[in-house]
Amino acid sequence: MSKFGLYTKFKTHEGQRDALVDLLLAVASGMESVEGCDLYVVNIPDNETNSIWVTEIWNDPSAHKASLTLEEARVLIERAKPFITGIEQIKLNPLGGKGI
Amino acid sequence: MSKFGLYTKFKTHEGQRDALVDLLLAVASGMESVEGCDLYVVNIPDNETNSIWVTEIWNDPSAHKASLTLEEARVLIERAKPFITGIEQIKLNPLGGKGI
Repeated sequence: MSKFGLYTKFKTHEGQRDALVDLLLAVASGMESVEGCDLYVVNIPDNETNSIWVTEIWNDPSAHKASLTLEEARVLIERAKPFITGIEQIKLNPLGGKGI
Repeated sequence: MSKFGLYTKFKTHEGQRDALVDLLLAVASGMESVEGCDLYVVNIPDNETNSIWVTEIWNDPSAHKASLTLEEARVLIERAKPFITGIEQIKLNPLGGKGI
């Protein structure tokens, strides 16, 4: 399995998480038609009020990289920037499991 | 959506990650027949040599809780303990996305 995984944590300004959640759910909808994207889930953690975690699994790293250059993605990234105060990413090598 | 998500980071003793990966992939296989488990993926991060991240999505929190009491799970947890030096968990509320 040469899949590619990502956990991305977005920190937002106070009171702006819901707006960024809506944007990221729009990104997730756009992923429905993106080849190579196996999983794109928008989550909120139970212990932080201004954070969002996005879980991604891609069929290979190049599919993920290509997606970032799509015009639609670039527009959404620009719209998201004002809400975001910080980003952390954990890059993963998925070895196997259920549901992928 | 009232699903339940988890990122679990296992830290292992030096040189024992592969053994724990094998155990966790066995857990993942067992999940194939567990109702309520939508996703259970075993990952290694690209920047740490003694860590494993497991990504889980459950249909609801009670399904996850019930799974921990299964005899098979309890046996595997006991077998895993000697390899593990630490565990961190991030509990998540999945709001939506692709692939779930």
